[in-house]
Amino acid sequence: MSKIVPVILCGGSGTRLWPRSRATKPKPFLPLVGTQTLFEATQSRCTGHDDFAPPVVVTGTGHLTHVEEQLIDAAAQVIVEPQARNTAAAIALAALRLPADAVMLVCPSDHHIGDCAAFTVAAVGAAALARDGWLVAFGIRATAPETGFGYIRQGAPLGDAGFQVSRFVEKPDLATAQGFLRDGGYHWNGGIFAFAAGTFLAELEQHRPKIAAAAREAVAQGREDGCRFHPGAAAFARIDSESVDYAVMENTTRAAMVHADMAWSDIGNWQALHAALDRDESGNTHDGRAELVDCRNVMVTSDGPRVSVIGASDLIIVIDGDEVLVTTADGAQQVGKLRGAANQ
Amino acid sequence: MSKIVPVILCGGSGTRLWPRSRATKPKPFLPLVGTQTLFEATQSRCTGHDDFAPPVVVTGTGHLTHVEEQLIDAAAQVIVEPQARNTAAAIALAALRLPADAVMLVCPSDHHIGDCAAFTVAAVGAAALARDGWLVAFGIRATAPETGFGYIRQGAPLGDAGFQVSRFVEKPDLATAQGFLRDGGYHWNGGIFAFAAGTFLAELEQHRPKIAAAAREAVAQGREDGCRFHPGAAAFARIDSESVDYAVMENTTRAAMVHADMAWSDIGNWQALHAALDRDESGNTHDGRAELVDCRNVMVTSDGPRVSVIGASDLIIVIDGDEVLVTTADGAQQVGKLRGAANQ
Repeated sequence: MSKIVPVILCGGSGTRLWPRSRATKPKPFLPLVGTQTLFEATQSRCTGHDDFAPPVVVTGTGHLTHVEEQLIDAAAQVIVEPQARNTAAAIALAALRLPADAVMLVCPSDHHIGDCAAFTVAAVGAAALARDGWLVAFGIRATAPETGFGYIRQGAPLGDAGFQVSRFVEKPDLATAQGFLRDGGYHWNGGIFAFAAGTFLAELEQHRPKIAAAAREAVAQGREDGCRFHPGAAAFARIDSESVDYAVMENTTRAAMVHADMAWSDIGNWQALHAALDRDESGNTHDGRAELVDCRNVMVTSDGPRVSVIGASDLIIVIDGDEVLVTTADGAQQVGKLRGAANQ
Repeated sequence: MSKIVPVILCGGSGTRLWPRSRATKPKPFLPLVGTQTLFEATQSRCTGHDDFAPPVVVTGTGHLTHVEEQLIDAAAQVIVEPQARNTAAAIALAALRLPADAVMLVCPSDHHIGDCAAFTVAAVGAAALARDGWLVAFGIRATAPETGFGYIRQGAPLGDAGFQVSRFVEKPDLATAQGFLRDGGYHWNGGIFAFAAGTFLAELEQHRPKIAAAAREAVAQGREDGCRFHPGAAAFARIDSESVDYAVMENTTRAAMVHADMAWSDIGNWQALHAALDRDESGNTHDGRAELVDCRNVMVTSDGPRVSVIGASDLIIVIDGDEVLVTTADGAQQVGKLRGAANQ
């Protein structure tokens, strides 16, 4: 039985965790939870277990230095995209470089997963379905009416391993999300997928033949350089920028899902990061030598200066070099629109 | 008629405006309101008006460099205390260096007065009473049940110029302060006094003969050095540390007061400073290139980094070198107890 090949997607810039995350050092490469960076933790989850082969990392030229500094497995392969073309293209490149029966486990590199054992169980279950020809999404149990996530509606069971997908739903409005939560049959789409390389390529060929053809040409014209693979730039530039959800998952009749209750967070903003961190009995968390007096649910992270806080509640304070961010928990959604975040 | 001699008291360290105010550069020497420092503004209020003579500044060796950097009037005299001995001693030194009929206007150097014309009117009125042998306090109209100030109870009128003092009250508890506010006959003690040098010394001699004798000896053993006067250290060290309120004003039968409605603030903490500053229509104030989104009554002051704030209310944010302070308006009273403020 072939091993699971982690395909780690390492792109995006992200402004929602500014000023810690910046264009020059984005979110995946920062130690936001614990001492490992999110990218390192993503690799660690897929390492040291017999079911996993060395990973394929897909990244852009801008992030290559960070990726190579933080690569854990010397046998990893790195596909270097000349520009950003969203997830369908990235996964297609990886699929084309793998045997048709290889099971790909597509993982974003900027999420946090608190329960690694549950992740492994879900990955092994998803791989089993993938070997049967399913395209498998990881469904995260919805615990709040989130409007920032896509949702998966659970369909008929597929033995013990998972379920068919009844449908994918793009980011809903609040009323719809509240309905999903009440219904109970909807799960967050965690952006983690498992499928055989050949299955994925066949579906891509069927639903997005232009993307499939351009990706095939980009790989044919590519060149290897040690562990790096550089796709042909001209062909790659012609690939339409589409998400794998939109290009493949929403169209295939072979979509499945596994439950993955693994303390997942996309760390989509500072408030989400605060929720993912260990907090003291007052809900506070801080690094360094902060002093918090009469505070509740306050998060402080500083790259240098001492931070002293008195009387605050539900507040996030970030010190990073020449920028200071202070936001309420509710305000965290708006960080990306700040002048400092937008004009990097 | 002798001119009014401003006696500017420039001592104290103060931790309540930490981290902007620090042991090495305390509050009087900072431009907290506008472009002038509080010490500069104190001098400016007593300059350029015919009634005022050049000032006498009383300070300590630790503050001398700051004082001399910020002296406005080349004819100012500076009395350099070898150590801190509170206000009775400081005023006694100045009184002993002046003619007996000189009217002293004792001014703290770390308060803010928004209405300088009203200050001048009060000073001229207080000086007239001082020439008649009264020891005159400036009474500030109480607008809140402050527990951090001493109070003055107004007595019988003294013509148009002012009133006798019925009694001085040390910092009250909240219930007492609320009673004072309802009563209406109580005023905050602004720490500004006017009296003739000879009158003050006679009262000091009567109520605190030991302080008077030691101060007299310290001046006799002192030496001049340009515009500086250094009292004799051994005698000065023997002076009891007492406030002028406690040593003289509460004991004399010649205490008077003038009303001084001059937009006064002792800038006793960050919240008081915020209240003294110009604010925008949302109650916010900031220097530098701060960005405030959905904020109300937020104050930001930074010596360098940009500060971005989202969604906050009634919050004070101070960036100063290696220290960051974030406090609610209510929490501002506790700043002096922070580790950073206490362990300077």
